[in-house]
Amino acid sequence: MERRRPSHEILSGDSADVYFARANQVLDREGLDPLVTMEVFTRQDAVLCGIDEAKILLAHALAEAPAGEAVVEALDDGDLIVPKEIVLRIHARYRRFGLYETAILGMMAQSTGWATAARATVEAAAPAPVVSFGARHVHPEVTDSLDYAAIVGGCVGASTPAGARLAGLRPTGTMPHSLVLIFGDTVRAAEAFDRDLEPDVPRIVLVDTFKDEAEEALRVAHALGDRLYGIRLDTPSERGRVTIDLVKEVRARLDMEGFTGVRIIISGGLTPERITRFKEQGAPVDSYAVGSYISGASPIDFTGDLKEIDGRPIAKRGRIPGVTPSPRLRPVDLAGWRGD
Amino acid sequence: MERRRPSHEILSGDSADVYFARANQVLDREGLDPLVTMEVFTRQDAVLCGIDEAKILLAHALAEAPAGEAVVEALDDGDLIVPKEIVLRIHARYRRFGLYETAILGMMAQSTGWATAARATVEAAAPAPVVSFGARHVHPEVTDSLDYAAIVGGCVGASTPAGARLAGLRPTGTMPHSLVLIFGDTVRAAEAFDRDLEPDVPRIVLVDTFKDEAEEALRVAHALGDRLYGIRLDTPSERGRVTIDLVKEVRARLDMEGFTGVRIIISGGLTPERITRFKEQGAPVDSYAVGSYISGASPIDFTGDLKEIDGRPIAKRGRIPGVTPSPRLRPVDLAGWRGD
Amino acid sequence: MERRRPSHEILSGDSADVYFARANQVLDREGLDPLVTMEVFTRQDAVLCGIDEAKILLAHALAEAPAGEAVVEALDDGDLIVPKEIVLRIHARYRRFGLYETAILGMMAQSTGWATAARATVEAAAPAPVVSFGARHVHPEVTDSLDYAAIVGGCVGASTPAGARLAGLRPTGTMPHSLVLIFGDTVRAAEAFDRDLEPDVPRIVLVDTFKDEAEEALRVAHALGDRLYGIRLDTPSERGRVTIDLVKEVRARLDMEGFTGVRIIISGGLTPERITRFKEQGAPVDSYAVGSYISGASPIDFTGDLKEIDGRPIAKRGRIPGVTPSPRLRPVDLAGWRGD
Amino acid sequence: MERRRPSHEILSGDSADVYFARANQVLDREGLDPLVTMEVFTRQDAVLCGIDEAKILLAHALAEAPAGEAVVEALDDGDLIVPKEIVLRIHARYRRFGLYETAILGMMAQSTGWATAARATVEAAAPAPVVSFGARHVHPEVTDSLDYAAIVGGCVGASTPAGARLAGLRPTGTMPHSLVLIFGDTVRAAEAFDRDLEPDVPRIVLVDTFKDEAEEALRVAHALGDRLYGIRLDTPSERGRVTIDLVKEVRARLDMEGFTGVRIIISGGLTPERITRFKEQGAPVDSYAVGSYISGASPIDFTGDLKEIDGRPIAKRGRIPGVTPSPRLRPVDLAGWRGD
Amino acid sequence: MERRRPSHEILSGDSADVYFARANQVLDREGLDPLVTMEVFTRQDAVLCGIDEAKILLAHALAEAPAGEAVVEALDDGDLIVPKEIVLRIHARYRRFGLYETAILGMMAQSTGWATAARATVEAAAPAPVVSFGARHVHPEVTDSLDYAAIVGGCVGASTPAGARLAGLRPTGTMPHSLVLIFGDTVRAAEAFDRDLEPDVPRIVLVDTFKDEAEEALRVAHALGDRLYGIRLDTPSERGRVTIDLVKEVRARLDMEGFTGVRIIISGGLTPERITRFKEQGAPVDSYAVGSYISGASPIDFTGDLKEIDGRPIAKRGRIPGVTPSPRLRPVDLAGWRGD
Amino acid sequence: MERRRPSHEILSGDSADVYFARANQVLDREGLDPLVTMEVFTRQDAVLCGIDEAKILLAHALAEAPAGEAVVEALDDGDLIVPKEIVLRIHARYRRFGLYETAILGMMAQSTGWATAARATVEAAAPAPVVSFGARHVHPEVTDSLDYAAIVGGCVGASTPAGARLAGLRPTGTMPHSLVLIFGDTVRAAEAFDRDLEPDVPRIVLVDTFKDEAEEALRVAHALGDRLYGIRLDTPSERGRVTIDLVKEVRARLDMEGFTGVRIIISGGLTPERITRFKEQGAPVDSYAVGSYISGASPIDFTGDLKEIDGRPIAKRGRIPGVTPSPRLRPVDLAGWRGD
Repeated sequence: MERRRPSHEILSGDSADVYFARANQVLDREGLDPLVTMEVFTRQDAVLCGIDEAKILLAHALAEAPAGEAVVEALDDGDLIVPKEIVLRIHARYRRFGLYETAILGMMAQSTGWATAARATVEAAAPAPVVSFGARHVHPEVTDSLDYAAIVGGCVGASTPAGARLAGLRPTGTMPHSLVLIFGDTVRAAEAFDRDLEPDVPRIVLVDTFKDEAEEALRVAHALGDRLYGIRLDTPSERGRVTIDLVKEVRARLDMEGFTGVRIIISGGLTPERITRFKEQGAPVDSYAVGSYISGASPIDFTGDLKEIDGRPIAKRGRIPGVTPSPRLRPVDLAGWRGD
Repeated sequence: MERRRPSHEILSGDSADVYFARANQVLDREGLDPLVTMEVFTRQDAVLCGIDEAKILLAHALAEAPAGEAVVEALDDGDLIVPKEIVLRIHARYRRFGLYETAILGMMAQSTGWATAARATVEAAAPAPVVSFGARHVHPEVTDSLDYAAIVGGCVGASTPAGARLAGLRPTGTMPHSLVLIFGDTVRAAEAFDRDLEPDVPRIVLVDTFKDEAEEALRVAHALGDRLYGIRLDTPSERGRVTIDLVKEVRARLDMEGFTGVRIIISGGLTPERITRFKEQGAPVDSYAVGSYISGASPIDFTGDLKEIDGRPIAKRGRIPGVTPSPRLRPVDLAGWRGD
Repeated sequence: MERRRPSHEILSGDSADVYFARANQVLDREGLDPLVTMEVFTRQDAVLCGIDEAKILLAHALAEAPAGEAVVEALDDGDLIVPKEIVLRIHARYRRFGLYETAILGMMAQSTGWATAARATVEAAAPAPVVSFGARHVHPEVTDSLDYAAIVGGCVGASTPAGARLAGLRPTGTMPHSLVLIFGDTVRAAEAFDRDLEPDVPRIVLVDTFKDEAEEALRVAHALGDRLYGIRLDTPSERGRVTIDLVKEVRARLDMEGFTGVRIIISGGLTPERITRFKEQGAPVDSYAVGSYISGASPIDFTGDLKEIDGRPIAKRGRIPGVTPSPRLRPVDLAGWRGD
Repeated sequence: MERRRPSHEILSGDSADVYFARANQVLDREGLDPLVTMEVFTRQDAVLCGIDEAKILLAHALAEAPAGEAVVEALDDGDLIVPKEIVLRIHARYRRFGLYETAILGMMAQSTGWATAARATVEAAAPAPVVSFGARHVHPEVTDSLDYAAIVGGCVGASTPAGARLAGLRPTGTMPHSLVLIFGDTVRAAEAFDRDLEPDVPRIVLVDTFKDEAEEALRVAHALGDRLYGIRLDTPSERGRVTIDLVKEVRARLDMEGFTGVRIIISGGLTPERITRFKEQGAPVDSYAVGSYISGASPIDFTGDLKEIDGRPIAKRGRIPGVTPSPRLRPVDLAGWRGD
Repeated sequence: MERRRPSHEILSGDSADVYFARANQVLDREGLDPLVTMEVFTRQDAVLCGIDEAKILLAHALAEAPAGEAVVEALDDGDLIVPKEIVLRIHARYRRFGLYETAILGMMAQSTGWATAARATVEAAAPAPVVSFGARHVHPEVTDSLDYAAIVGGCVGASTPAGARLAGLRPTGTMPHSLVLIFGDTVRAAEAFDRDLEPDVPRIVLVDTFKDEAEEALRVAHALGDRLYGIRLDTPSERGRVTIDLVKEVRARLDMEGFTGVRIIISGGLTPERITRFKEQGAPVDSYAVGSYISGASPIDFTGDLKEIDGRPIAKRGRIPGVTPSPRLRPVDLAGWRGD
Repeated sequence: MERRRPSHEILSGDSADVYFARANQVLDREGLDPLVTMEVFTRQDAVLCGIDEAKILLAHALAEAPAGEAVVEALDDGDLIVPKEIVLRIHARYRRFGLYETAILGMMAQSTGWATAARATVEAAAPAPVVSFGARHVHPEVTDSLDYAAIVGGCVGASTPAGARLAGLRPTGTMPHSLVLIFGDTVRAAEAFDRDLEPDVPRIVLVDTFKDEAEEALRVAHALGDRLYGIRLDTPSERGRVTIDLVKEVRARLDMEGFTGVRIIISGGLTPERITRFKEQGAPVDSYAVGSYISGASPIDFTGDLKEIDGRPIAKRGRIPGVTPSPRLRPVDLAGWRGD
C-alpha cells in the first residue's frame, strides 16, 4: 500500500466517537496514562484489509513514544483471518492512541467488508478475472479505499485512478453510455475512441446503448477490426440483464465472422451466485466487472479490547483477561510505516 | 448542511471511474461539447441524502458556465422519494460535469443508504429517540457523512464531533469500556468522569464492564446521586446481549431505591425488529444507540441518464427518451451553494 | 358448440378402458342389462367444459333406446362448478352407455382442465383480452378441443382454424419467425404480409427477430403507417423474455413518434402471476397471447358412480347410495344434440 | 409404431396455428420457397416420444419433393434426450412442411410429456411393473397416443385396445366397479367374469366395492381358487386410499390361507413418490396401475428454429445461426415411414 | 376436587429434588427459619390445574403453623391464566414448606399441561363434546390426575373410574377390541354387551374390528335396534384412520335405513387441527374421544420465586424484588382444604 | 429395578379404562375366559423403559394361574427397540390380565418417552455426563419413575431420593436459589452449606443469584478453596441463559486464579441441539443438568393386540393374525418378579 499521512480530521479526533476524547480529558485531569495492551479481532472469516492504513495512523500517533515503549504487532492486508483471531495488538500508553480506536476500527471494518466480498466474486469467477466497478456507490472520499480493497480481495483491476494507484496498477475501464449517446451511434463513438486515445488503452466498446447487443457487436468488430480489444455487455435490468445465452450467442456470432480474438466483458448486478451460474453453464465470459456486490458489502465489525493494564491481565465482562496467544502476529516497523 | 469545498481529489476526477476522463478526452479531441440534460433516480423508496453535498460539487463544477446556460433542479436532503422519481436534473454542457457523475452518484448512494436505514430505526423506536453510534464501522473520512445522514434520517444525535457539526448539533456519547477498565471500577470511573468534565456533558455511565448490570447501576446511582443523567446497558453478545427483562429489572430496582429520574440507554446489535420487540413488550428504554444497522446499510444505487442532447430527446435502450415530468423538483441556487 | 358425429374409434370402444368391453361381454352372457343411474362429479372448483361433446356422444349411444327409457340431465360448457357437484346424470340401461365412460370422462377431464386454466389467465388480464396460442403443445387431433375450451374459459380468440370454427370465431394470429427469417428483414416481411393478405386480416408484426424490439417497432410503424394494427413482443427466454419495462418503453417510443394507435401484444411464458404483475405495474399491454399455461394444464379428474340399479339406491364403499339432490341439472335434448 | 396416415384435418392445416397458413400465402404470392434447414429441440431431460408419428406426417408432406431435395434426420421414440439436443432436422423447401410445424411440435410435446412421466413411475417401481390406466383423463382421440407413450416410457401394458395395438401389445385390465355393483356382490361378479371370458384374460378382481378389502380378497380367493390371477386394491380416497399396511395385511391373510400365488395390483393416486414409499417399506405389490400421474403430465415444449436458408447460416435473436453438431441424429427413410 | 391426604412419599420429601432437603438441613443447623413470601407463575397462556391438589399439600404442610403466621393466596383449578401472572403466593416460615416446592410445581406443571391441551380440543370440537381417552399413555399412578385435568379443561367425561370420581362424574367408555375378537363377531359381542351390562351403561359399539365400518354399523344397528346408543369409529392408521367422508357415509347409510338416532363417536390420533377439519367440512360427528393429544401434552413449567424475606423485598438476578400486584388472588382456607 | 408391589388402585382396576372392567363383566356373565396371546409393540425407535415395572404387575396379576398356563416373554428396561418390534408377549387366560392393559401400556408409554429423550441428551453430551433435574415438571407420584427412566436412558444421576433409590444410586443436587437468597450472599450460603453437610456431599454452588457469574465464581472459589467441587451456572432466561462464551470465560477466570479443579455444571433449557452446540464450540462443560427436555417428553404410544385366541391366529383389521416372530424376546420369571 502506498504510504499516506492521515488527514488532519482523523489526527484531531474529529471523526472519533466523542467519548474517546472525553476519556482522554478525564485521564489527563486524573494524571493517569497507563501502559496498556489492546487487542483487535472480528467474529467471522474474512479477508483482512485496512490494517495497513491503520498501521500508518498508529505510526504517526505513536511517533513521540520513548524508544521501546510502544510495540505494535499485526497481520497484513490480504491475510485470511478466522473468528476471534487477534489481528492487531497495541502495547503503548493509552492516551497516545486511545483516541484513534474509532478510526482504526472503521478503516478495518469497511475495507475488510469490501475485500471479503471481492474475494467471493473472484473465487466464483476463477480463472476468469474480476474488475471492481463499484466507485459510483460510495462516497468519493473512499473510492480509493474501495478499489484498493477490491484488489486486495483478488480483483485484477479497478475503475478509479486513485484506487488503482493505491494498489500500484493502472485504472481499468471502457466508455460511458453518455459518450455513445452524444455520438448518436455506437460505431461512431467507437471510432472516435479509437482515434483519440493513447494506443495502450484497450479498446473495449459498450454495445448495448442503441441496438441489439449481437448486432452492435458485429458492427463494432467490423469497424475497428484487430484494434478492438473487447466488447462490454451491460444490458439494463429493463431488458432482462445480461443472460448466459446472450453471451454464448454473441460469442458464436463473433466467431462465425472471424472475430475470435474479441473479448467479452460483462457487468450489471453480478453476484457470486450469478457468476457461478455463468461459469457452470459454460458462458464464454472473458472478464467480469462487479459493482454493488463489492461496494455494497456491509462493514465487518472489529472489536478492540484492553487485555492488560500496567502488566496486569484484565478484561471486561464477556472477555477473557490477558494476552491471547497469537503466533501469526508479526511486529510492525512503525518508523517504516511512518515513512521516516 | 454546512458548506464545504470539494476536495482536490474529487475535483481532479481522481476518484471518478476512469472512463469518464477518457470520454472527456475523446470529446475534447473531437471538438464536441453538447448541451445535455441528465436525470438521476433510484429504484426504491428511500430517504434522500447526499444530494446537498452533490449540489456543492455541481456549484463548483459549473462555476464558469455562462449566465443562464447551466440549470440544476433537485430535491433536498431528507425528502422521501419513490422508485424512478427524478431527484436531480442537470442541464449544462456535458464536459463541465460529466467527470463528476461517479462522485455525485457515490455521495448520494451511500448517504441515502444510511439515512434510509436510520429512519427505519427511528420509526421503530418512536417516541423514544435514537442516536447514531456507527462511526467505528466506516472509514474515518466518511464518519461525518454517516452521522449527518443518520440525523437526516431522524436520529437526534451522533457520536462524532465532525458529524454532529455537519448537522448543527453537539456530539453525543457516554464513556468507553477502556476508561472503566483503567480505573478498575465503574464507580471510580464514574466519579472521575463527573469530577473532570464540563457540567453540560450529561453523566451517562456504562454499567456492564465488571459486575452484573443491575448491581452496578445501583452502585453508580448511589455514588453520583442527582448528577447521574443515565446509565447505558451494552451487555456483550457473550452474555446474551441486553434483554427486555434486563431493562425492566434495572428500571424496577432503580425505582425501588428512589432513582426514578435515571435514564436507561441501550445499545448492542439493535435493529428495527429488535427495537420493535422492546417497544411492544414494554421495556422502559429511554434512548436507543444504534450502530451497525445504520453504518452497515448497503448503498442505495442511483442512476444518471442523458435524456436530451442539444434539445433532442434521447435515451439508451431500456429508458424512455426525453425529460421526465417531475413537479417536485426545485431550482438550485448554484451561487448560494458555492458560498459566493 | 358445433355438432360433430363421434369418430368410429370412439363409438367402437377402441379408445375405452378394456375392462368396460369385458364388463359388457359378461353382462351380455349373463343376460343382464339393468336400468341404472350414473352420476358424474369432480373434486375441485372448475370451469366445466367438454360436457357438450359428451352429450353428442351420449345422444348417439342412446339413439336406439325406447322412448322415455333413457334420460340425461347435465350442466353446460362454461358453467362454474364446485367440488362434488353432480354435472351429469345418466339414467339408462347400462349396456347402452357403459362402454363410453372412459370417453365421456376423458372429454370432460381434459377440456375442463384447459378451460379452467384459461379462465385464470383471463381474470388476471381483464379488461385486456387473452388469446389462446397453445396449439403447439398438444396433439393435432385435439387442438380444436383445446382452442374451444380456451374460448369457453374466456379467451377472445384462438390460433387454429379448427378450434376457432368450433367456437364460432375466426382464428387469430400474427406471423411466424420463419417468415421474417426468410425475408431476411422484418420490414420487408411486414410489407409483403401487408401487400399479400386480405384486408380484413389485422396487420400484427413480430418485432423481435433481428433487432432490438424498440428499434424494430419504430421501423415497422414507419413502413406500414396507419395499416399497422399492432406489434407482437415475443422476446425469447435467452434474452430475458418480455419485461414490463420493455412494454412501457416501446409504448413510449411509439407514442413519441405519433404511433399511438399501434397495439402491443405480448407472448412467451405468460402465467396468471406474470400477467398480474404486468397489470399491477401498469404495463400498457393491449392483448396477451397465452400458450403453455393453458395447453399444459393437467386434466381435472371426473368420476362416474352408479347410484341406482333398477330403482334401488346403491353405491360402492366410500360413496353415498342414491341420487344426489342437484337442482342445477337441466334435461338434455338428446335428439337435438344428435342433430336429428 | 404402427403406421397410420395423418388425418385430413392435420394435412389440411386446419389444426395448425393460422399464421403458418398466412405465411405460406405470402410466400406463394411473393414467389418465394427457399431451401431451409429447421432444427427441433427441447429444454429439459426427457424420454422422446411422438417423433415417429411426426416422421409419418413429414413423409406424407414431403412425398412430392424431387429426389434428394428433402432430407430428414431424427432420433427415435424412446431415446433419452438432454436439454437443447437436436432431435429432428428437416432440410427441404419451406412451403412443403412449414404448415405442419404446429402439428409436429404438438405430437412430440404431449407424447414426450407422457413418456417422461411414465418412465419416472417405472423407475420408482422397478422391478415391479407399471401399467398405464390414464385413458379416462384425456380426450378419446388421443388415448391411443397416451397409452403408446406410456409403453415407450417403460410401462408393460395399457388399458385401451387402441393404445395397446399401437404398441403391439394386448390391452390390460380388470373389471369396473359398475360390474360388481350390478351383480350386487363381488364374489358373484367374479364368478361370472370367470365363467364368461376367454381363458387367456387374466382373472383380476376388484375387492374394494362392498366390503373390507382383506375380507373380500379371501372370499374371492376361496371362490375362484387357482383360476384367480390377482386382486386389485383401489380403495377410494374417502377411505384413505390404499396404504402400505393394507397391502402387507392382505398379502399375509392370503398367504395364511394358502393363496400365495394370488397377485396384488394397486391403483389410486399413485406417483413416483408414493410408489417409492411402498417399495422402500417393503409393501408386497406385484403391479402398479398408474393413471393421472402419467395422463396429467404437462406437455414438454419443443421449439423449431430455422438455422439455414438457401445454404446461409441464420437464426433469430437468441439463437445461434447455422446447423448444430448432432452426431446422434440418424437419417429418416421417408418412403419407409410413408409405407410405400 | 375430592380431598385426598398427600402420600407418605410426598410428605417425606422423597420425591423432592434433594437440594431442598439439604437446604433445610443447612438452615436447621444454622438456626435460620425466616418468614418468606414465595410467588409461583408460568410463562404462557394456560388453563390452570393441579393447584387445588397443591392446596391440600400446603394445608397439611402448614398445619402446625401458629395462627395467622401462614397465609396462602391462590387461583383455582380451571382459571385461565396469562404469562407471568402470579397463581400462588405462600407467606410462611420457609422450613415449613420449602421441601414441597418440587411437588407443588410438579402437580401444577403436569395437570396444567393436560388441562390446557384438553381445552384446545374442546374449543375445536364445540358444540360437539370431547371425552378423554388418554389413560393408556400415562403411568397408572397419575391416570386420575390426567382425567381430572381433562375434565377441568372442558371434557365431558373420562375413561377411568379414578379420574371420573375425582371430577365427580361416572366413567365413559365403549368396549375394547379384545372383547370383539374373543366373540369373533361384532354383532355377537354387541349382543352380549347389551345382555350383560346394567341398563344405564350406554350401548356404544366398536365397528371396525372385522369388517368394513359402514357394513358393520348397519349389522349392529339391525341387531340392537333402539337400544343402540352409538357406534365408535376407530379405524386404525394402517387403514388410513377415520376420514371425514367415512363419517358422512356411515351417517348417510344409517339414516337411509332409519337409524337416525344412532350416535357416531370417533377416535384415533385426533388433534385440534384434525377436529377443526372434521367440523369445518361438516362431518356429522356426535362426540370426539381424544387420547394422546391430551395425555401427551408437555408439562407447562411453573417457577417459584422468593420475593420477600422477613419483610424485605428481595429477588434473584433476573426477577423483580417484592410482592407482585395480583388482584385476582384469593385467600385459601387451609383448614378447609385439610378437611378439618 | 427395585421391586415394588403395585398399588391397590392399580390392582383394583380403578386406574384402567372402564371398558376393560365392562369387558370382564360381560365375559364373566357369558362364561368365557379363553386362553389368548397378546403382543405389545410401538411404532418408533426408542429406549424401552417401564417394562420391568409391568413385569411386576403381571407377576402379581398372574399369581393364581395354574402352573404352566401363563407364559410371559419380554425385553428389558434399557433395550433399544425398533418400530413394530414385539416387546412383550402375554399368553394367559384373558380375564386374568385384560383389566391391566391400560396400566401396562401407561407404564411403558411414559417411561419409554422419558428414557428415549434422556438418551438423546446423553448422546449429545458424551463424554460429558448428564443428570436428570426434571422432577419439578411431573406429578410427585411419578418423579421416581421419571428419574429411574432418565438413568435407564443413560443419565448418571437424578435429583430425587426416590428416583435415585429405584436406580440404585444416590441423589444428585446442588442448592436452591432460595438458600442463597435467605443467606443474602452466595459466599455465606456456600460456607454454611460446606459447614453443615456431610463430607460426602459434593460442594456444588449456584453462582448466578446475586452477582455476575464470573465474579461470584471467583468469590466462592476463594472462600471454599479445595473443598469446592464445582459451580453451577443456571443464568435465567431474563438474562439470556447460560451461553457458550460464559462457560469459556468462567473457566478461564477460574484457571487464571489457580482453580483448575473446580467443575462447571450448567442447566437451564438444555436440549440435545443446544448441548451439541456447546460441545461443538468447545465450551468446557463438566456436566449437564437437564430438566424439561426429559420430563416434558411426550409418552411413546404402545399398542396391545390379541393375536391368538384358544390357539387360533386372529387379529383385528389392520393387523396381521398370529404370533409375530420375535427372536429377541426372553422368558420372564414371574415368581422372581413377584419377589416370591
